[in-house]
Amino acid sequence: MSYRPPLREHLFLLADVLEIEQHAELPGFADAPLDVIEQILGEAARFTSEVLAPLNRVGDREGCTWKADNTVVTPPGFKEAYKALVAAGWPALGAASKFGGQGLPYVINLAFSEMSSSANMAFSMYPGLTHGAYSAILNGGSDEQKVLYLPRLASGQWAGTMNLTEPQCGTDLGLLRTKAAPAGDGSYKISGEKIWISGGEHDLTENIVHLVLARIEGAPPGTRGISLFIVPKFIPAADGALGARNGVACAGIEEKMGIHANATCVMVYDQATGWLVGEENRGLALMFVMMNEARLGVGLQGLAQGEAAYQAAAAFARERLQGRSLTGPKNPQGPADPIIVHPDVRRMLMDARAVLEGGRAFLFWTAVQTDLAQHHPDAAARQKCEDALGLMTPVAKAFLTDRGFAICSDAMQVHGGAGFTEAFPVSQYLRDCRIALIYEGTNGIQGLDLVGRKLAANGGRAMMGFFADIDALVEAHGADETLAPYAAALAGAKAQLQEAVLWLMQNGPADPDNAGAASHDFLHLMGLTALAWMWLLMAKAAAARIAAGNNDPFFAAKLVVGRHFIDRVLPETALHLIRLKSGAASVMALPAEGF
Amino acid sequence: MSYRPPLREHLFLLADVLEIEQHAELPGFADAPLDVIEQILGEAARFTSEVLAPLNRVGDREGCTWKADNTVVTPPGFKEAYKALVAAGWPALGAASKFGGQGLPYVINLAFSEMSSSANMAFSMYPGLTHGAYSAILNGGSDEQKVLYLPRLASGQWAGTMNLTEPQCGTDLGLLRTKAAPAGDGSYKISGEKIWISGGEHDLTENIVHLVLARIEGAPPGTRGISLFIVPKFIPAADGALGARNGVACAGIEEKMGIHANATCVMVYDQATGWLVGEENRGLALMFVMMNEARLGVGLQGLAQGEAAYQAAAAFARERLQGRSLTGPKNPQGPADPIIVHPDVRRMLMDARAVLEGGRAFLFWTAVQTDLAQHHPDAAARQKCEDALGLMTPVAKAFLTDRGFAICSDAMQVHGGAGFTEAFPVSQYLRDCRIALIYEGTNGIQGLDLVGRKLAANGGRAMMGFFADIDALVEAHGADETLAPYAAALAGAKAQLQEAVLWLMQNGPADPDNAGAASHDFLHLMGLTALAWMWLLMAKAAAARIAAGNNDPFFAAKLVVGRHFIDRVLPETALHLIRLKSGAASVMALPAEGF
Repeated sequence: MSYRPPLREHLFLLADVLEIEQHAELPGFADAPLDVIEQILGEAARFTSEVLAPLNRVGDREGCTWKADNTVVTPPGFKEAYKALVAAGWPALGAASKFGGQGLPYVINLAFSEMSSSANMAFSMYPGLTHGAYSAILNGGSDEQKVLYLPRLASGQWAGTMNLTEPQCGTDLGLLRTKAAPAGDGSYKISGEKIWISGGEHDLTENIVHLVLARIEGAPPGTRGISLFIVPKFIPAADGALGARNGVACAGIEEKMGIHANATCVMVYDQATGWLVGEENRGLALMFVMMNEARLGVGLQGLAQGEAAYQAAAAFARERLQGRSLTGPKNPQGPADPIIVHPDVRRMLMDARAVLEGGRAFLFWTAVQTDLAQHHPDAAARQKCEDALGLMTPVAKAFLTDRGFAICSDAMQVHGGAGFTEAFPVSQYLRDCRIALIYEGTNGIQGLDLVGRKLAANGGRAMMGFFADIDALVEAHGADETLAPYAAALAGAKAQLQEAVLWLMQNGPADPDNAGAASHDFLHLMGLTALAWMWLLMAKAAAARIAAGNNDPFFAAKLVVGRHFIDRVLPETALHLIRLKSGAASVMALPAEGF
Repeated sequence: MSYRPPLREHLFLLADVLEIEQHAELPGFADAPLDVIEQILGEAARFTSEVLAPLNRVGDREGCTWKADNTVVTPPGFKEAYKALVAAGWPALGAASKFGGQGLPYVINLAFSEMSSSANMAFSMYPGLTHGAYSAILNGGSDEQKVLYLPRLASGQWAGTMNLTEPQCGTDLGLLRTKAAPAGDGSYKISGEKIWISGGEHDLTENIVHLVLARIEGAPPGTRGISLFIVPKFIPAADGALGARNGVACAGIEEKMGIHANATCVMVYDQATGWLVGEENRGLALMFVMMNEARLGVGLQGLAQGEAAYQAAAAFARERLQGRSLTGPKNPQGPADPIIVHPDVRRMLMDARAVLEGGRAFLFWTAVQTDLAQHHPDAAARQKCEDALGLMTPVAKAFLTDRGFAICSDAMQVHGGAGFTEAFPVSQYLRDCRIALIYEGTNGIQGLDLVGRKLAANGGRAMMGFFADIDALVEAHGADETLAPYAAALAGAKAQLQEAVLWLMQNGPADPDNAGAASHDFLHLMGLTALAWMWLLMAKAAAARIAAGNNDPFFAAKLVVGRHFIDRVLPETALHLIRLKSGAASVMALPAEGF
């Protein structure tokens, strides 16, 4: 079975759960009433399933090819698909209209991105990284830089990349060595080696705009001496006409477990001409603008691969005939029942649904926060959205990629032996998905960011806001017959999360290793609580439709899947709390040489 | 870093924990006092790390090649390594001495198998399957068949395979279609297509002995009409001289996510000559002899890949410099600390250790049960071992492969971006390991076997024996200061397991779907309890050494890792109990077409 974009789920979230029509007066939203959104997403569903999904397998099998002349050839069909993507205007969906974008809400872009990533994760990374480069220049670039680069990045005419990692420097950017020497004309000469640069070289666009972290001669050591540069592959004139080939070349690509169709490049900068973005030595802050956006995008990839894998597993389980139901034949005319009759197969499919549907709501919610943080007329409301985004970004990234990978693995399990062969798509989903737990900051780093930075920022304001929102929601719906179990479950999870925060406050300062040892479990406790919150919102929306006489099984199913989340997924919170409260003692007891 | 066989762990288990010297009077054990075992395993460590491990990567990259003449070429170096394996007598380790084997205890063979599988899983499957074929003929073959085949399979001169699966028939063997027609001379003509046949064709041995399930003309439908046949690739004379090429051919091999160096074959039987093993229509029972042995072997693969991946992760974490410890620099002279200082990295390594060391003890314990079931002079003792083996085989298979895969994934996470590239070994461990959750009966099938068959067999005798053993152990050590926490943890897990059994007894008969929905969680609850039991035994052994004045940090580390198991791994039992008791309701609530 081929991938079917979950259009219905998207529209339910946008219209019923997040009720985006309440924001109709804001920029972006004003241009996208629900009927327009439905039309756009319908087109997105068509484009991703008909153009991108059919290239997913060939991309995996053929991969990218590095040539001795430092060029990279993408898999067959990718160039044409990219051309079609640009022609249809998809990259410009969320870009600002004054830079050639369509200026639609970010949440619409996210919906497209989910479909695109499920259909073909490796392909979708090319425009995804371009969007990151767009954001960095939008946030930190000069007016000239904006005029020159933004429209071409927004349209997809040029591609963008993020260049952080070096062989000795991954998570710890303070170790960065790439050098920038002032050329005297306002530009810099950039020299150094970057590794693991996604889309560092390819044949999809006429130009590639590298955003490169480097150290200006004489800059302070560590992270306070890092600046951000634009280093275009071809140096453009002010009118965008391509000039000389710059001194940057792809020296090779990595062999990887997955995302074969996305070139992971070794990039060598040899006196390449670059232009400073923003201020000297403030590169990291700008890179984090890209990074935070990218982290939500990576959380989305985890969800998107999980969704695609779930769909493949559900289709396989409905079709594969093997064995009989424990409660008597369900397909008595056939040689066997479809394996979907088996409770253990259902368990895996339902677990996937509970997390995917809750996780999607959570991601769409973060996307709306992004829109409101930008456009809401009220400063306090904008700040609340910023707070929530900062707090939830590491959770969305790590929780959804951990869970997405687990869903891919369960989806393979539903396939039995077939799943392990490359004749079925699920191996690719699993292999592609695995990188999402690692890049843009490993999931361990997300946990540290959450526990060590986001939790305590501004006196814990963001977390207190989250708790207050939950309390208000529980208060509002706790007495409703249908919603009471959802409200009670959410209240229970929140109480455990609160206990975890208290434990961290009491035990983190005395021994920071306690916070480090707790970070993974704290993040998952928080992710589960966030999904419980989303399930209450979804149950409320579905119950309202049902109460209004809507007999569509879609709404009844929401209540069933939500119940499954409460009964079988959410109870994990208690385990995370126990682990967290065991502290660093057993974790750190052995000496390093004991491993 | 290359794989280092955990010799020390093996000797600790054999000598201190399982105290195998107490069985010195039994066949097999009599030939293997501890000093001899140490010598054998030392040689095993050398052979597997020096001969097999260096071929693991080339095996993954080159894979097997199918040729148009229906032959299969194994990766470079495999033929030579196989020759060395046979020359060193490793395949004959556990085989009966009257059939040319060394007649050593099965547990010694298991220790070798772990090393072999960690070093090169794909390679080790060739002799592994041969051993399965050996066991089936040993159990069901005629004297002539035994004399002809067993010595040649035991030595590895010939290889063996298991042929069960057909395109329409995997888990549900009742759907099997391959036909056997009596040829009139005592032999049969076998026709049909088998798929996913590991080692179905290769260039390692002069002959391949296929054990094939087929349906004799006129046999009853379903599983009661299936017979087992020997179908040799070359038909041997009574003296073993190879005769005519038989009518069986490899029509292709699968592309798979992992174990590339083990050929997964489509086998076409076209009037191939076969000989019945055992009685007509009783093939399934014989195949299950192979299968049960193979299931323990697959559990071992999960452990072995986890161990190899853990070792790679630990080595990487000790060497990779990135960031600083939360409690101040640990490598102040260097540019950064090794990442092993970070609690979240430690968490993953310690979780792996807790499960690997406990899981290895569990597997070694099952292997000793296998030996005792065969050799113990007391019939009641033999039956108790048989009971325990039957009960624990599905647990060992599914629990250890689920956990082994999770450990591989965590080991990749420790590597960060490096782990996703094929320049590091952990991607292969993860990809190879994944099949172990699927073959020899998916882990879901293991859960059903446990809950639907093993639990209730003989009035629940095996489970009651398990509970009684735990009670006695808790009683014996509950008052010991060092061991009390281990005993209390074990008692707590056992109480939850008992509650789960009770729930199944109360809710399974009314709705068999309750048992099916519970099976996964029940199996993991049982696996965790079994490991808690092993940790008490290991803690006891380590504490005894320490009390005797032994200062080796090995023993102190055992108590630390055991404590980590209790604090951070074992609490998962409560979650499994909650899930299990939620029953089939939410799992089965949606109609099949709702997926």
